[in-house]
Amino acid sequence: MTYTVDSMPEADLALAEELGRQLRIDSIRASTSAGSGHPTSSMSAADLLAVLVARHLRYDWDNPTEPGNDHLIFSKGHASPLLYAVFTATGVITEDELLTGYRRFGSRLEGHPTPVLPWVDVATGSLGQGLPDAVGVALAGKYLDRLPYRVWVLCGDSEMSEGSIWEAIDKAAYYRLSNLIAIVDVNRLGQRGPTELFWDLNAYARRAQAFGARVLQVDGHDVAAIDRVLADAGSGGGDEPTVVLARTRKGHGFSEVEDRENWHGKPLPSEMATRAIIELGGERSLRVRGPVPKPSGLPVRPDAGDAKVRLPRYELGAKVATRRAYGDALTALGVRRDVVAMDGEVSNSTYAEQFAAAFPERYFEMFIAEQQLVAAAVGFSVRGYVPFASTFAAFLTRAHDFIRMAAISQADIRLVGSHAGVEIGADGASQMALEDLAMMRAVHGSTVLYPSDATSAAALVQAMAERSGVSYLRTTRGAYPVLYAPEVEFPIGGAKVLASSPDDQITLIGAGVTVHTCLAATADLAADGVHARVIDLYSVKPIDTATLVAAASETGGRLVVVEDHHPEGGLGSAVLEALAAAGQHDFVVTHLAVTEMPGSGSPEELLDAAGLGAAGVAQAARALLAFVVADADASEE
Amino acid sequence: MTYTVDSMPEADLALAEELGRQLRIDSIRASTSAGSGHPTSSMSAADLLAVLVARHLRYDWDNPTEPGNDHLIFSKGHASPLLYAVFTATGVITEDELLTGYRRFGSRLEGHPTPVLPWVDVATGSLGQGLPDAVGVALAGKYLDRLPYRVWVLCGDSEMSEGSIWEAIDKAAYYRLSNLIAIVDVNRLGQRGPTELFWDLNAYARRAQAFGARVLQVDGHDVAAIDRVLADAGSGGGDEPTVVLARTRKGHGFSEVEDRENWHGKPLPSEMATRAIIELGGERSLRVRGPVPKPSGLPVRPDAGDAKVRLPRYELGAKVATRRAYGDALTALGVRRDVVAMDGEVSNSTYAEQFAAAFPERYFEMFIAEQQLVAAAVGFSVRGYVPFASTFAAFLTRAHDFIRMAAISQADIRLVGSHAGVEIGADGASQMALEDLAMMRAVHGSTVLYPSDATSAAALVQAMAERSGVSYLRTTRGAYPVLYAPEVEFPIGGAKVLASSPDDQITLIGAGVTVHTCLAATADLAADGVHARVIDLYSVKPIDTATLVAAASETGGRLVVVEDHHPEGGLGSAVLEALAAAGQHDFVVTHLAVTEMPGSGSPEELLDAAGLGAAGVAQAARALLAFVVADADASEE
Repeated sequence: MTYTVDSMPEADLALAEELGRQLRIDSIRASTSAGSGHPTSSMSAADLLAVLVARHLRYDWDNPTEPGNDHLIFSKGHASPLLYAVFTATGVITEDELLTGYRRFGSRLEGHPTPVLPWVDVATGSLGQGLPDAVGVALAGKYLDRLPYRVWVLCGDSEMSEGSIWEAIDKAAYYRLSNLIAIVDVNRLGQRGPTELFWDLNAYARRAQAFGARVLQVDGHDVAAIDRVLADAGSGGGDEPTVVLARTRKGHGFSEVEDRENWHGKPLPSEMATRAIIELGGERSLRVRGPVPKPSGLPVRPDAGDAKVRLPRYELGAKVATRRAYGDALTALGVRRDVVAMDGEVSNSTYAEQFAAAFPERYFEMFIAEQQLVAAAVGFSVRGYVPFASTFAAFLTRAHDFIRMAAISQADIRLVGSHAGVEIGADGASQMALEDLAMMRAVHGSTVLYPSDATSAAALVQAMAERSGVSYLRTTRGAYPVLYAPEVEFPIGGAKVLASSPDDQITLIGAGVTVHTCLAATADLAADGVHARVIDLYSVKPIDTATLVAAASETGGRLVVVEDHHPEGGLGSAVLEALAAAGQHDFVVTHLAVTEMPGSGSPEELLDAAGLGAAGVAQAARALLAFVVADADASEE
Repeated sequence: MTYTVDSMPEADLALAEELGRQLRIDSIRASTSAGSGHPTSSMSAADLLAVLVARHLRYDWDNPTEPGNDHLIFSKGHASPLLYAVFTATGVITEDELLTGYRRFGSRLEGHPTPVLPWVDVATGSLGQGLPDAVGVALAGKYLDRLPYRVWVLCGDSEMSEGSIWEAIDKAAYYRLSNLIAIVDVNRLGQRGPTELFWDLNAYARRAQAFGARVLQVDGHDVAAIDRVLADAGSGGGDEPTVVLARTRKGHGFSEVEDRENWHGKPLPSEMATRAIIELGGERSLRVRGPVPKPSGLPVRPDAGDAKVRLPRYELGAKVATRRAYGDALTALGVRRDVVAMDGEVSNSTYAEQFAAAFPERYFEMFIAEQQLVAAAVGFSVRGYVPFASTFAAFLTRAHDFIRMAAISQADIRLVGSHAGVEIGADGASQMALEDLAMMRAVHGSTVLYPSDATSAAALVQAMAERSGVSYLRTTRGAYPVLYAPEVEFPIGGAKVLASSPDDQITLIGAGVTVHTCLAATADLAADGVHARVIDLYSVKPIDTATLVAAASETGGRLVVVEDHHPEGGLGSAVLEALAAAGQHDFVVTHLAVTEMPGSGSPEELLDAAGLGAAGVAQAARALLAFVVADADASEE
């Protein structure tokens, strides 16, 4: 019995059941042909997906960018064979691509799904992330797009032990996301054995209900039951997100592996695959599409409007914290209707509160849940919004895995971390970001910015709005003098030379607060007749290599890099990597960073103790003056 | 009315109530004198702590290392004034230290508690970590120490939105930790306004019960009720962890701030402090200690026993994955009775399963909850065990904030990340650790190891057991030839020169899998008559600067660094930082790393595509041969 798209009378339940078998068979075929992958984790969820795709998911497969489309996110990304089998069944990829592309070099059918595929919103494969991402998409749908699309998420049972799942359900309930449906494939078996809760659907139900979700339970291999439950789940009735708990069997449909341990992440050997396909009724080529949403008539990306952004202007010399400038600039950017902001319950410290007060309809409080904070930004990015997410820089480390995955998701998100370094003072080491530059620089395609004053901070916030990929702004707790006039431009990838003369004997390189200590050190050095150049390296990545090369060449190859960060991976590494990549070698760097575990104290005490104060910088500079490179140019004589 | 330690008849409830007032007053005095801190967050929990410390906590304040002591962890670390007021009341610190030390430079009374203080187990201040850490301590108590101590944790209500809290309660219930008591100070107010759940204690109760905890509710300002509840909580009856939900008022006891917004993290101005102290009945100097546990008679640290560790031996040239060597060596180390292991549900990939099979009583499955995985290791470290925690290296990013805090906690933990880099092949980018070296290097005091073969991997696992601080082993998925004989030693901080001659014109520096591609490249280069030195930089941090300096000097200053990691913060940065710190400049580095977003493919395809295969290394080496430094030594002529 074979249906085709032409002869298909309607996507009835018999067809859905057939489709479930096909999805299993194709999951087996794809993974066996690739020699790796997760067929059994696909087979448990195949009936759920068959009914969903054939009868409930509203999706125009020819127009994946249609804003009215439902969203389908595989939080259990390892079930990629199933997802790609779905794509095959809808006809958007060919069976040939499925069988020859899956997990192959250069193919878009990667081991875990990524948005290289136009039907995939976010990259998954690090468990517990798809659902938090989906919360962001659903927030956009309910509060900003105001479109009736639903966000369907396939979760694995193993990933329910990730705390981020509960951050997501909590926020989904808090924001009454009745457009969000998590379907949990409770197949009882994790990678190396049974899950914590086995098939105790009631235990899952109690948890999800306690966190505010509506829970529906179903036999995940009874297509009629699935159909009823998904109809209910997708109805959007009520005020709660829905969690569908589906009792399934891993490897369902093939008796040799069904509900057996030690079959996680293993393709079937080809003889077994042959037997499995026979047991499943033989190969078939159903082409099935479900309902298509009414065209929204909206542009693919939300309209920013044409209101002109008027950045704040600061008086030279006035003391303004860069975190405050962030709040000011974000609020100025708020005239763009596509800008959204969120924060991790510290908006009165990060100054995101200013945006929240001015544009409450586009501000989303994420409370103390940094993983969900970043995931929400990723979700807003899926719908084309321009999200800014802020918290203390130290606490962005909580979301490192999400930030890493955001890059794979091709998400355009802006992260803002306040209270960086020992400069924060009395709160102590737990609140001091001393690892964030290393973390953010190593993210693929990231932009890392660390302004020293309010003018540059505001300009960079505006630049971030236009920036693709993951961008990061590091702000400072304390207020320091404004160094730049409002007209000055701060291109990403640039740097500013703040003090310079033809007689410069040394270059002091800082960013953020250390620009100020470097400037203070020049006064000290000048008293000894030493001319020091000062570079404000506000763009840590990409970096202004030309300015660094020129400084190395023009100041006798003597560079002092000063950063309020641990010594590894931050500003110092960035400078060394840039000069190395430029083939430079006639220079020596003295690197000042936070090498000892700091405690409490005033910002000045802690900066001085770390050797990052003006005296420490001047001392390091004097010590370096003895260095003479072999072929240094004339400027130093 | 003033009690003193001498005249104190018994720690009755009237005294506890008085103590509660004193703890409030001292929290106010400490923070007002410091000019910063969180008095109101301390005042809400003061009655809870007063009753706990006076009547329930079994603690020998003169012997904080007594293994039988209960543990007291402030998960809401910002309530440090309260904790230090408790220490003052027990007499272990003086009132003078409290008032002149709190949050001051050089003082041990830091803004958030750290184990600089002997009565503090772990550093807190990043919310949602104290409870997961406590799970580790409670696991040690119940399953390894087998001592009747309890682990009491003070949680804030705001931090209940962190997913890690639910990972902790889930694991506490799974492991039936009836010795763990979380006291949640539900004061309704977070930093910038009300919490998500206000005073809905029933909502918290439903969640905690659903996750398997026993829940007790109490008026957090009724000392008699608190006393009954804590007696029940600490009884250890039943099989579940206990969550005490205490309804409290932030700033309780001073009408001008009690239950008011905008008083988070703000000390009272001195006039207000004076009025508050009057309203609270005036200063007093109670000295109160509660029950002392029966001495356990056990050594401070668990006994390792004296069984000799016999490391696995591998045949030269045999293909063995370093992850398998990890499992072998960990199992060999298991004869030490203080070694414990845990894993994030991937023990059949990391090979921790070998230890689990051999020593099931010292293996703890943490399922897919990497934050709790690392926190459990921290908790075991508190009790002096030697914990090894493993998962995919990529997923350790999930626990970055915990790893950062582990360093502040002075925890001795060993982390092992498998499946590093594009070498993993078909699974794709989500499973590839390409940021872990940057992350781990930037952790204060960390050790970062990346062996290329099974012999060195096994030796380094043994070295990690003796290492203090946070140490990290990066292992590789694939099997590669054993390069070293079993007798070879691998000191942390060392490197191996694998190919070397007086005619070396260039140095190839790799670690892990790239050692093998560098070795393969030498054959290619030798065909052109080019002599290349190869360095196995198995110790990424600390790094063998002398070997690098010698190589730069002896091979014409030509260095090629090859790493299966993003370009920022990893091996390349480590080499550049080391040479810069050594004042070296007559060298040029070509840095090969993963610059493009990888997809799926075979390990070879992906390494080649990233330019990290033998051909890519050889090509980079040839291109670098043109480089001649000004004062290169004779060896290159």
